[in-house]
Amino acid sequence: MKFFQVKTVEETFQLISEMVTPITETIRKPLFEALHFVLAEDIVVREHVPNFRRSSVDGYAVKARDTFGSSENMPGFLTVSGEVKMGQEPPRGLQAGEAMYVPTGGMLPEGSDAVIMIEHCEDISGLLNLYRQVAPGENVISIGEDLKKGEILLAKGTKLRSQEIGALASQGITEVSVWRKPVIGYLSSGDEIVPMEAPSLELGEVRDINAATVGALVAEWGLDFIYGGIVRDSREELEQRTRDLLDRTDCLILSGGSSVGTKDYSVEVIDSLGAPGVYVHGISIKPGKPTILATANHKPIIGLPGHPASAMIIFHLFGKAVIDTLRSVKMNHLKLTYAKVTKNIPSSPGRTDYIRVRLFEEDNEWYAEPILGKSGLISTLVKSEGMIEIASESEGVHKGDQVPVTLFQ
Amino acid sequence: MKFFQVKTVEETFQLISEMVTPITETIRKPLFEALHFVLAEDIVVREHVPNFRRSSVDGYAVKARDTFGSSENMPGFLTVSGEVKMGQEPPRGLQAGEAMYVPTGGMLPEGSDAVIMIEHCEDISGLLNLYRQVAPGENVISIGEDLKKGEILLAKGTKLRSQEIGALASQGITEVSVWRKPVIGYLSSGDEIVPMEAPSLELGEVRDINAATVGALVAEWGLDFIYGGIVRDSREELEQRTRDLLDRTDCLILSGGSSVGTKDYSVEVIDSLGAPGVYVHGISIKPGKPTILATANHKPIIGLPGHPASAMIIFHLFGKAVIDTLRSVKMNHLKLTYAKVTKNIPSSPGRTDYIRVRLFEEDNEWYAEPILGKSGLISTLVKSEGMIEIASESEGVHKGDQVPVTLFQ
Repeated sequence: MKFFQVKTVEETFQLISEMVTPITETIRKPLFEALHFVLAEDIVVREHVPNFRRSSVDGYAVKARDTFGSSENMPGFLTVSGEVKMGQEPPRGLQAGEAMYVPTGGMLPEGSDAVIMIEHCEDISGLLNLYRQVAPGENVISIGEDLKKGEILLAKGTKLRSQEIGALASQGITEVSVWRKPVIGYLSSGDEIVPMEAPSLELGEVRDINAATVGALVAEWGLDFIYGGIVRDSREELEQRTRDLLDRTDCLILSGGSSVGTKDYSVEVIDSLGAPGVYVHGISIKPGKPTILATANHKPIIGLPGHPASAMIIFHLFGKAVIDTLRSVKMNHLKLTYAKVTKNIPSSPGRTDYIRVRLFEEDNEWYAEPILGKSGLISTLVKSEGMIEIASESEGVHKGDQVPVTLFQ
Repeated sequence: MKFFQVKTVEETFQLISEMVTPITETIRKPLFEALHFVLAEDIVVREHVPNFRRSSVDGYAVKARDTFGSSENMPGFLTVSGEVKMGQEPPRGLQAGEAMYVPTGGMLPEGSDAVIMIEHCEDISGLLNLYRQVAPGENVISIGEDLKKGEILLAKGTKLRSQEIGALASQGITEVSVWRKPVIGYLSSGDEIVPMEAPSLELGEVRDINAATVGALVAEWGLDFIYGGIVRDSREELEQRTRDLLDRTDCLILSGGSSVGTKDYSVEVIDSLGAPGVYVHGISIKPGKPTILATANHKPIIGLPGHPASAMIIFHLFGKAVIDTLRSVKMNHLKLTYAKVTKNIPSSPGRTDYIRVRLFEEDNEWYAEPILGKSGLISTLVKSEGMIEIASESEGVHKGDQVPVTLFQ
């Protein structure tokens, strides 16, 4: 067995970025199903948006110079020469001295260069009284002002949010090439673990809580989850079933069996699944020290600690990093906010501590109240909305310190 | 037609909370499908978690007083009296002077009251050398320490995140009673709107971009979306199709037709769908002034402005508030962060301005860089990650001001 030094949090993230290779298989997705997928192609603007000069208000298309000098006290006058209908070309061009009604989004007639809002003029029997002047281009969206033909609309690697879906729709693009999402497999190991539907527990037994939290997080991230069940403490069975599940998935999560206990062959089993094998065995972090990270034939494997809260925190941090890298999603820095801590939190130098916190708002600031409790307690997670990191070189944080918070959501 | 005064943002949110009634129909959901639903029942803890005294470390169960005074220089000694196996009851109780190996999560033997970590002792041929002392309760998770039988585990109204799913699994609860999620219907109106799959555009036409952005947001929020298509500018057809779609859904979104233009009968149609009818027609906000909010026979209706960016901003703010109220979800305050603006942004008093921003991090602080552009431009949304609000009484914000940011995600 290889010898491992416990890694720091920074080293672990660095190793993940080096050891996890993104899935390169692309699929075509209809636009309505492409939300949260990552583009595998550059999308170029095919048509100017808008492809005609549009009014951004309800008003009258005019030649701006015809309005110069008009004011409440000295109104200007123009002849109303008809109306532009939505979705139609204007009935005629605009001559000097004329104004033509145009609704919001309507097309400007040839010869006009600005729109005066209906609030700033009055049509009195076909004579438009102007109560202010407008500048050339005012209230007009010019051709290509939103999107210019030939420009990159969305670059390869863009994660599609609702606005990107809208931008694609604006181009009539109803199918895109995206990277296939990974399928995540999960297996629990341990003689004490029973299925979560077990109606009652024998002494010493616990239900497979991690399957529920990990499965829910995978679903929240929009990925498919294959539950591989529970493996009793048997090296042969563990090896067989991890191999089988790894074959059917892109990433394998193993829960339990990662402590330095008597039954600690899971690291050997994980290491045997394929090259290059285990690259992290132990992180200087609390909770979650006995975490394992491995790669077997380009597929990542994550060994989570058995304690439910530790498992969830580790999966939130390193599981997410592994899976995001696998699916070419940039780390979402928006899951981070800043808050002031409400109490002193001491910490031991030499390891990174993750402290669960409840967040509340007061006077336009966020406050983070630590939820204390042993790492095994799922109740601490139910009470919390995020976690703060106390860096390994630090001896803790002081009441009132501004700290970054990773959000659970 | 009723007479409406333009409402402020605060009045609008207040009216939404008064006028939208949550769906009270409950359904049973299997745990694995219950993520992001809202509990329609209190869940009581059925069994203590843990239901036995567990070790939180790999070590030896001891009587704490047997370890008192032990140190590196003056080790104590105990007789190793066997081993606890995971998921099994200990082979015997612990007598004074004895220690028993117990793995992380293992059950403590009768008579023990603490666990000494393997790092702090050494088993030399059955004689355990203790290099430190432990306090009673140290490294022990006591019965019910995580969850106590009879306590409320999760209160009615709780939105189920992954940790709540885990807490339910810990109790063997595999099905819960939740509120049915609303089904959202959407209809576009306007002679200029063509289906998004239209391969090319005639002059004056635009694709139904709002269907894409609104549909994607509804999917992101985990709800079903029914696309009702495009209605030409005909009052009869609009009335017929809104009625039909409202019958099949819990909430109706209408895009376009809400400007004070010549074809502005949509507010009358919406008002005719049922009592009490329209309660907001116009909000003192930029972009998005011509927004309509109504309730017809307990179903909310939202009239969005036609401009894609305005429509998305309005739907993010007020559409989300309506839908969250409908599904009994508390407003998610975590979608808010604080950032310093990078430039002065002037604003007209008397209306609330929403400015799209790009966020970046520097020196443990968030900065918000305004993305400027006319409200119709979808490209401004693609470039932005959130929006800041400039309150109606304010004349703008100054470079360096700390402001709240609503996140797009």
